[in-house]
Amino acid sequence: MSPAALTPREMFERAPFIQWLGLRLHVLEGGRCESSLRVREEFGQQHGYVHAAVITALADHSAGGAAGTLLSDRESALTLEFKVNFLRPARSEELFCFAEVLKRGRTICVVESSVFSSPGKEPAHLVAKATVSMSILDATEMKQP
Amino acid sequence: MSPAALTPREMFERAPFIQWLGLRLHVLEGGRCESSLRVREEFGQQHGYVHAAVITALADHSAGGAAGTLLSDRESALTLEFKVNFLRPARSEELFCFAEVLKRGRTICVVESSVFSSPGKEPAHLVAKATVSMSILDATEMKQP
Amino acid sequence: MSPAALTPREMFERAPFIQWLGLRLHVLEGGRCESSLRVREEFGQQHGYVHAAVITALADHSAGGAAGTLLSDRESALTLEFKVNFLRPARSEELFCFAEVLKRGRTICVVESSVFSSPGKEPAHLVAKATVSMSILDATEMKQP
Amino acid sequence: MSPAALTPREMFERAPFIQWLGLRLHVLEGGRCESSLRVREEFGQQHGYVHAAVITALADHSAGGAAGTLLSDRESALTLEFKVNFLRPARSEELFCFAEVLKRGRTICVVESSVFSSPGKEPAHLVAKATVSMSILDATEMKQP
Repeated sequence: MSPAALTPREMFERAPFIQWLGLRLHVLEGGRCESSLRVREEFGQQHGYVHAAVITALADHSAGGAAGTLLSDRESALTLEFKVNFLRPARSEELFCFAEVLKRGRTICVVESSVFSSPGKEPAHLVAKATVSMSILDATEMKQP
Repeated sequence: MSPAALTPREMFERAPFIQWLGLRLHVLEGGRCESSLRVREEFGQQHGYVHAAVITALADHSAGGAAGTLLSDRESALTLEFKVNFLRPARSEELFCFAEVLKRGRTICVVESSVFSSPGKEPAHLVAKATVSMSILDATEMKQP
Repeated sequence: MSPAALTPREMFERAPFIQWLGLRLHVLEGGRCESSLRVREEFGQQHGYVHAAVITALADHSAGGAAGTLLSDRESALTLEFKVNFLRPARSEELFCFAEVLKRGRTICVVESSVFSSPGKEPAHLVAKATVSMSILDATEMKQP
Repeated sequence: MSPAALTPREMFERAPFIQWLGLRLHVLEGGRCESSLRVREEFGQQHGYVHAAVITALADHSAGGAAGTLLSDRESALTLEFKVNFLRPARSEELFCFAEVLKRGRTICVVESSVFSSPGKEPAHLVAKATVSMSILDATEMKQP
């Protein structure tokens, strides 16, 4: 791995799972990340809803992107833990995620992500709410936290 | 949807995302589920580790299976919320999950899942620990909790 | 226990631990609860900060109050689970909590609480952020969820 | 504050809130902490159960103690975040807590705590299960994580 960390945009482009999902980036700056996901049939769970882990991928990776915008080029972020509440089953054709850094500490960055079934951030369309703690690591080492 | 709920095994077989991942079932009875996952390149994040959301898929779906073994054929389980701690980056070729019901209530089932990078449940190979709350719903309705 | 549930205000007045803490109610309506707490020396942990569990008491009980404003007089709310991130050590003389219902379901109510070290909701003064899931129970029974 | 960190035992003795609760230490070594709490009337919530935040205090502080046994005398632990599931309302006269470190990393220590209404660790008496992330800080600074 090169000594310099990935740029926030490369965090998305170089992640094979995120590429497979087809996550789209809309905003990525100043501690915020906005993204969306076109739902495909293979994202489903057994009742036809979008699988909780797919919603989580959107929430977690966008949280990582939001954190990435506040890191130096010697730092990398790695998910330490998250908690996700699923508020409504998602059947929509597209999901929209808004992630924002709550606190950028020295070694920890805490980010909140909201996933909606429509782009308007309407409470009635809130599908999931996540709180994500990211470890801030030395990019040259990528040691475990 | 038919009035009868899916069997615990059908919860895996009829979930397209779980089929895409290739999750394998080993034990599914008595409030427990043991499963494993062969890691493929497209599961990766940007540093070559398995993506947190893939590990979560294993932990969450196995938790749902464990809960499913304690439900009647009129009940279905849907993930209400989970919290996952990622203890070590996973680079292994295979991941192993052990899920066990902590409490089966009337409307809520709480399950713990542990994901290891080896089949031996050794603490040094513990990759992630999850606590999952499942809503127990009437299978004929699948209303939101 | 009487067949009717407690009013949201009684949820505070009849809780001995909340009375001991001295929690003050400012707003309690429409899915929202605003409260505050004068910090006393016996709330401290070993480094002189307010103990995480005291901050949690403020966040959790205010979440219960917010949920309570959306319940009928035959329903009661009981904490099912919560997750709290502590963003800054609290040393201030007073803590301020803003709780708001994210989703009122049939059997579950999900609430977010933010605790600040100043009344202005400034990000720089955000001490803790909590997500709380409350079970909605039949007040005449108060059975476990 | 003195340059040396508190000993694990001092983490309990010098915490005014823990002293007020009357938490008792039974085991404190090797990444484990066992403790108990005699329930008093002022610990109650509005239905006569032990308040969730009191159960949390037992789980969180014991987690901190367990982490403390694995720290050097130049390190201190501070709660970064926790998640607690409440499995049964607690009305018992005494609560028993078993905390164990899951992972001791460089800057983070993850601990699990189980709270029971009887000393026997019986599943039927499991009142709450907590996962706690502690930040490991330089004791001479106690900077925020």
